[in-house]
Amino acid sequence: MSLPAALPEAERDIDARFFADWSGMVRGVPGALYRPRSVEEVSAILRHCHQQALPVTIQGGLTGLAGGGVPADGDVVVNLERMAQIEHIDELEGIMTVQAGATLQAVQEAASRAGWYFPVDFGARGSCQVGGNAATNAGGERVIRYGTMRDSVLGLEAVLADGTVLSSLTRLVKNSAGLDLRFLFIGSEGTLGIITRLRLKLQPMPASAAAAFAAASDMHALACLLRDLKRAPGVNLTAFEFMSGEFVAAASRLAGRSCPLDGRYPWYVLIESAEHAESGGALQRALERALESGRIADCAVSASLADTDAFWQLRHSIPELLAGLKPTVNFDCGLPWAEMEGFVDRVNAAMRARYPDAAHLFFGHLGDNNIHLMSGPHRVEDLHAVEAQVYAQLRGREGTISAEHGIGFIKKPFLGYTRSAAELDVLRRLKAALDPRNILNPGRVLD
Amino acid sequence: MSLPAALPEAERDIDARFFADWSGMVRGVPGALYRPRSVEEVSAILRHCHQQALPVTIQGGLTGLAGGGVPADGDVVVNLERMAQIEHIDELEGIMTVQAGATLQAVQEAASRAGWYFPVDFGARGSCQVGGNAATNAGGERVIRYGTMRDSVLGLEAVLADGTVLSSLTRLVKNSAGLDLRFLFIGSEGTLGIITRLRLKLQPMPASAAAAFAAASDMHALACLLRDLKRAPGVNLTAFEFMSGEFVAAASRLAGRSCPLDGRYPWYVLIESAEHAESGGALQRALERALESGRIADCAVSASLADTDAFWQLRHSIPELLAGLKPTVNFDCGLPWAEMEGFVDRVNAAMRARYPDAAHLFFGHLGDNNIHLMSGPHRVEDLHAVEAQVYAQLRGREGTISAEHGIGFIKKPFLGYTRSAAELDVLRRLKAALDPRNILNPGRVLD
Ligand SMILES: Cc1cc2nc3c(=O)[nH]c(=O)nc-3n(C[C@H](O)[C@H](O)[C@H](O)COP(=O)(O)OP(=O)(O)OC[C@H]3O[C@@H](n4cnc5c(N)ncnc54)[C@H](O)[C@@H]3O)c2cc1C
Ligand SMILES: Cc1cc2nc3c(=O)[nH]c(=O)nc-3n(C[C@H](O)[C@H](O)[C@H](O)COP(=O)(O)OP(=O)(O)OC[C@H]3O[C@@H](n4cnc5c(N)ncnc54)[C@H](O)[C@@H]3O)c2cc1C
Repeated sequence: MSLPAALPEAERDIDARFFADWSGMVRGVPGALYRPRSVEEVSAILRHCHQQALPVTIQGGLTGLAGGGVPADGDVVVNLERMAQIEHIDELEGIMTVQAGATLQAVQEAASRAGWYFPVDFGARGSCQVGGNAATNAGGERVIRYGTMRDSVLGLEAVLADGTVLSSLTRLVKNSAGLDLRFLFIGSEGTLGIITRLRLKLQPMPASAAAAFAAASDMHALACLLRDLKRAPGVNLTAFEFMSGEFVAAASRLAGRSCPLDGRYPWYVLIESAEHAESGGALQRALERALESGRIADCAVSASLADTDAFWQLRHSIPELLAGLKPTVNFDCGLPWAEMEGFVDRVNAAMRARYPDAAHLFFGHLGDNNIHLMSGPHRVEDLHAVEAQVYAQLRGREGTISAEHGIGFIKKPFLGYTRSAAELDVLRRLKAALDPRNILNPGRVLD
Repeated sequence: MSLPAALPEAERDIDARFFADWSGMVRGVPGALYRPRSVEEVSAILRHCHQQALPVTIQGGLTGLAGGGVPADGDVVVNLERMAQIEHIDELEGIMTVQAGATLQAVQEAASRAGWYFPVDFGARGSCQVGGNAATNAGGERVIRYGTMRDSVLGLEAVLADGTVLSSLTRLVKNSAGLDLRFLFIGSEGTLGIITRLRLKLQPMPASAAAAFAAASDMHALACLLRDLKRAPGVNLTAFEFMSGEFVAAASRLAGRSCPLDGRYPWYVLIESAEHAESGGALQRALERALESGRIADCAVSASLADTDAFWQLRHSIPELLAGLKPTVNFDCGLPWAEMEGFVDRVNAAMRARYPDAAHLFFGHLGDNNIHLMSGPHRVEDLHAVEAQVYAQLRGREGTISAEHGIGFIKKPFLGYTRSAAELDVLRRLKAALDPRNILNPGRVLD
């Protein structure tokens, strides 16, 4: 056990980069900023805030899209950026011990230098922190193969609201000695404690990827294709990213990306499979069967890294689409496969009737039950009504208002659409049990 | 929402099969037995017990090895065996909705009839219930490939101590809308609620397995072999079960099983890899390389189902060993790979000095960090001292006193050996928040 540290000096002259996150939807000026260098300092800061009942906003890399890391005016901000050490890699077992403020990219690079692979990955990798990734249960484009942070965090250390250091740094695949406490912090968006250290499970380096781009005439066909590919011998899916025809058309118009196939189909999908030389074109063979059986309408198989790159550039046109259609409302809904087509139809009908001049672009990670929607341009005064209209279509469908980015401040009014009153009550009981003075990220997720 | 049900009639004339579990170490006579048929009845029973502050013992199939389902004398027992319906299978997405009292075998068979596979599996499959599997976070022999129940439960419904029905029956791979509540119940051994319904993730049918039996001169070589096989192209490990030379010798002596290799090595391992025809003998090629490099000392590759069967029969000699060495003490410890050899050496030295006539047989799932030990015969009055001596060797080694079977009554005195005071305090706070009158499985896991 370590000795209690003294309370570090708070910074009062605070750079504006600590006022907002990438959502850009909320902004606040903190009263004090701490950038601790050790878990002992984090503990001293929280002990102090707990005693004084000061509201605390926890910040990682501030790439969040739900406003969770944005302070209310006057908040104490605790930013983890100075706790960024990769502390240890067990090269035999493939386990990394790391401070929570290390960037995702630093984690990926350290894993790869040790001959291992860290699979959580997305565009914000250079700025987001692995602690923030855990707090939001981030995933990215390889979830279909490797799961989310929940599947990559073997154990963690967190500081509770009253300053208690809770070390649950287990590194075992299987542990049945009492409830697993990781899950109180993974995905809790900083409401139950500050994550200070993580034990991450690394993966063997994947084989190089075979890639393809396919077109389908309806979403049900896409779901069947996905099921078939999961079962196809030798295929080892690492990505299955769908896009609507409108998405592809907008990406061509606004970002100058060309579609590898005829552009008249309603749905497209980018498929990747990590295939060893021994499995000899398993994805290609499976897609030939899918074409023959009519599951898909057309298909292009990548013959080079340049082809694969072009497929991904189309999928990654989001920044250009955001710029060209702003102000947009961006959704990261989740639904069972069987509900997706109906959701798209209902949303399209309602939105086209009410906002005929806006574009409504659907895309997402089908294998993760994820359906994104970017809708815009809208008038600023309509943004909330657009949200309410889309979220209403999720009710009673076993879906979620956030499959990816979390609730934070921004989606809080809608949480009750897909979580029951009994669930919200249990969330409140847990919050009261672990943070009785409600000092950690108050007003986020729940009131 | 369903209407509150009336309290069902309690059974007072109770069969002795409800008095004990497979551990055989504790036994109690309940005051009343309920075998509810619906979640509404479970809710009515708990509402009643909560109001009257009656202690409740929850029972699944009573195959547990930690005494968790064994009532204290006079307890109200709630046994789930009449809630055994497979309610729905989504054949497209591979998701089963099932009542908690269905047996593991019934779940496996229903999955397979629908063209899918449920990977949790072990010897007690015909009796244990899928709710009991979730409550103990059970795993089995395929954890290295598919994880434990935690990885197979997408969502669940549970009844809280006060009778509240908490439906967290999500079926989505990824959901970031507020904390995930499954993890309060998976592995909590019935201390936080009664699991009544589950949403299970099914897997594609695995390819047929290549199997081998190898010998190594030390545990470090085994760990290196496992790392190499995880990384070997085309190898898709589904089992990696190690056994000590003493284990193999005892299985031959007491169960008449013959070892496929020369019996003079200190360590053996049974390896399985699910290989498609396309990967053409990937396991065999990888083992040839391991032999050449000296990683392993000898190796037999299965040429037939009969060979594979013989390998597994050796590993499955446990009942004969238990019978031949009783009274035994059985451990299901967990350790980092790097700590296992030291643990074995320390335990062997201490036990041989103090109990020179007993056998000390090590075996387990190396990939899951699991090390089992069966030690016996011992005098009954020595059993507790044997436990204390072995658990003491785990302290400060980042291990666990239970990687598999849970704490229940039996391991409770030792929980503090591998969980910190801060962790135990959080476990108590959660218990108080969800079960303030301490009626659910009181006296188990924690005091
Ligand atoms: C370009 C881009 C692409 C993205 N793609 C994806 C994607 O594919 N999949 C996906 O899941 N998400 C994606 N995201 C969102 C993702 O959730 C965040 O980018 C990231 O995980 C947040 O990390 P951060 O360190 O920036 O956290 P912040 O934004 O600083 O904080 C996010 C939340 O976590 C809390 N928090 C941060 N650090 C800690 C800590 N140490 N302890 C406790 N709480 C903490 C904060 O209080 C806040 O509530 C994307 C974001 C961007 C900008
Ligand atoms: C031959 C044999 C082999 C085994 N192999 C393995 C193995 O390889 N891996 C492994 O992990 N385990 C193994 N086990 C132990 C395993 O944990 C249990 O057999 C099984 O998971 C318990 O299920 P059950 O329905 O019999 O539960 P029970 O024994 O009835 O109960 C176990 C615990 O769960 C609680 N419980 C039961 N049902 C519910 C419910 N619906 N809601 C809330 N709490 C509940 C009980 O109160 C008790 O605390 C083995 C056991 C045997 C006998």
